Order: sequence, then C-alpha cells, then structure tokens
Amino acid sequence: MSMPRILEVRTRILKANDETARSMRREFERAGVLVVNVVSSPGSGKTSLLKETLTRLAARGEAVAAVVGDLETDNDARRLAESGVPVRQINTHGLCHLEADMVAKHLTGWDLTGLQYLFIENVGNLVCPTSWDLGESLRVALLAVTEGEDKPLKYPGLFNTADVAVITKTDLACACEFDRDAALAAIEAVRPGMPVLETSAKTGAGLDAWLELLGQRRRSLTGG
Amino acid sequence: MSMPRILEVRTRILKANDETARSMRREFERAGVLVVNVVSSPGSGKTSLLKETLTRLAARGEAVAAVVGDLETDNDARRLAESGVPVRQINTHGLCHLEADMVAKHLTGWDLTGLQYLFIENVGNLVCPTSWDLGESLRVALLAVTEGEDKPLKYPGLFNTADVAVITKTDLACACEFDRDAALAAIEAVRPGMPVLETSAKTGAGLDAWLELLGQRRRSLTGG
Repeated sequence: MSMPRILEVRTRILKANDETARSMRREFERAGVLVVNVVSSPGSGKTSLLKETLTRLAARGEAVAAVVGDLETDNDARRLAESGVPVRQINTHGLCHLEADMVAKHLTGWDLTGLQYLFIENVGNLVCPTSWDLGESLRVALLAVTEGEDKPLKYPGLFNTADVAVITKTDLACACEFDRDAALAAIEAVRPGMPVLETSAKTGAGLDAWLELLGQRRRSLTGG
Repeated sequence: MSMPRILEVRTRILKANDETARSMRREFERAGVLVVNVVSSPGSGKTSLLKETLTRLAARGEAVAAVVGDLETDNDARRLAESGVPVRQINTHGLCHLEADMVAKHLTGWDLTGLQYLFIENVGNLVCPTSWDLGESLRVALLAVTEGEDKPLKYPGLFNTADVAVITKTDLACACEFDRDAALAAIEAVRPGMPVLETSAKTGAGLDAWLELLGQRRRSLTGG
C-alpha cells in the first residue's frame, strides 16, 4: 500500500544527505584532512582498531580526531579518548546509522585545517550505514575472525560500497577455526580487487600496513 | 522537512505489521507451537546455536522447523537443514529485519498443528528487528563473548524487548578476556530480572538448560 510513498520520501532524504556529504567532502579535501568512515557489525573491533590507530598516529606527531556513533552511551568515546586525541560521541537514540548532518554538527568548533586524519566510527550495523555518505574519502569495512567468513556474501551492499576491507581479531583466528581463504574469497566475490588487511589490535599484527595505507591515501588526497 | 511524513508512513506500516503478527500469534498458540524469534548482531552465533537446538530437539522426537532471514544467500538455511528438520530461507534483498508477512508467506504449506517448535532466525542486526513483531511467543537476544560486554547498554531497545538473553561462544571467553560480571550487569541494567543463559554450541555447555527453558515455555503455552 504505502510502499511507493515511503520510497519516495526515503529517496528525498537520501538525496539531501548526499548533497550535505558532497559539500562536506569538498571542505575536508580543501582542508587536507583524510576522512575515514569505519563500518562493521557490532563487536567487530572498530573501537579497538581505532584506539590503536589514534594512539600510533598521535605518537608520530600527526593531528588526528574522531567522532563515534552509538545508539546510547559514550563508552566508545571514552575508550578512544584514552589515546589523548580529541573525540566526540554522537548518540543516535535508536537510529541504525550516522547521517552527514549529524557528523557536521559534531565537528562544530574543530579547526579542520589543523587536522590530518578524521575517523568516523559508524553505528555497528552491516546494513543501514551502506546508503549514507558521510563525506568520507575512505570507507573501511571490518570483518572479525569471530563472526563468520560469509558475511560479505550475506551483506554484499556494505562490502561493495567500501574501499578497503580490514580483517580484525586475527589473534583469535585459531580459536575460532577461521577459514582465511573462504573469507578472502567472499570479499573478492562482492568487491573484486578490494585491498584487504589483516590485523589484531591486541597483538599489533598488521597495524603498520594499515597505517601505511592511511598515509598513502592521505598523500594522494593532498597531492603530496 | 519530511520527517513528520516519514514517521507517519512508518507508523502505519508498523501498525499493519502488528496486526498481522497478532493474528499469526493467535494461530501459533491455537496450534500449540512455540515460536521463538532469535535476534542478535551478525556473527553472534545464531545459526550455530539453532543448528544444535534443532538437532537435539529432533533427536528427542520433537517436531521442529525453522525459517531464517538474510539479505542474500541461503547459506544459513543449508547449515540448519543439516539437522534434518524442515528449514526455509527468507532473503530480504537489502532489508535489515524480518517482517511478519515475510514469515507468514514462508510458512505456506507447513502444517502448524503438527509442529511443537518453530524458530525464526532474524537478520543479524542489533537495531532494526526491535520494532517488528513476528508473532513469536519468545524473543531471544544473543550476545557473544567475542563482541563486547556493553552491547546491551549501547543497544538497549533490542535487549529490552527480548524475553531471554543467551550468552554464546563461552568456549572463547578466556581468549577474549570476556568480563562476565560486566555483561550480566549490562543485561540487568536494561532488562531487570531477565533470564540469562550461558552457552557454547561448540562444546555443548549450557544447551541442556536452554532446551529445558524452551520446554517449560512450550508447556506453559499449551497449558501442559
């Protein structure tokens, strides 16, 4: 009955989001800040990976900040703030994804031109963040070894719209009997040629390659 | 701008879903079948728990069936069908939750009066399934030890609308440094008094208690 109508309204809202996101992306690129939108299932290790990332980038003298989305609580902002970099929490109060204007609102007062990296930790969800552009230059999809190798096949939209896949919690791969080949094949099936990194925030494995990828993307953004 | 309108349309669709679900619940209860809606994050172990559950109930001579929702693939239906019981896959093609009429459609041709248990494995998502009644008598929220003890606080809606919480993958608790007390406190905070079971589909730990709970619920449904 009301499906065509809800689709029409949804299309209008998505279009407004796209316009906001495009204007934010222009601003980010002008300021030379690499904006990274991190998406995954709840519990895939977004916060752990980002905490290590923020800490290591800050230790190298890079100017870094982060915003983090959750339905409720500021637990993740508090965890990320232990890195010493500026962090703000966005609470969506029931909404299953971040939207561009929520991110814009939470950047108020931050001097973007002083920043090199801005990380956006999206709400943990393998479906809803897919359609919402946040003005990022890099969308990163995480897949934990604990959650099943076929997630990319079951949620192709999320992996297909991401630029990079990061396999997380590799320290648990043995305990979980993680089938690495199956996971790589699933990622390749939905997004052929997608770069894949394998990391453990706990042991530090793979983090150098991850930071190197971020550095490359930032240099290509600023033409440096 | 269009927010009041989208809310109005959404409210109408949810209301139609509630009416379908209520009529399904009456039919399920008349048939004496306990319908269990299993919700969790992607990768929390819904399929593994259900496969063990179906296998063990069938071995006891119970008449069991299952439907399973995913955006794409019939991987989970194939895994569950290894238990030997009837299983049907629902593909939502991008939708982040199951709705009552999708379930109804996939029950066509099944004789409900011959069934004792029907399990519905929802789409892996900690947000969207919350508002969609599927006509179940029991809603079960899973929380894997791999995914962070504060999930109930971050996604209170999902845990608050469930009847039972099941902690899964307890065999990995040590490797993940799972803080059991923190997880139990988080569940208690959002849903005081909620029964909590601790299980491992891999080792079988806690499965007897889980089957006992299902049996009790079914007996109270049929007044037996």
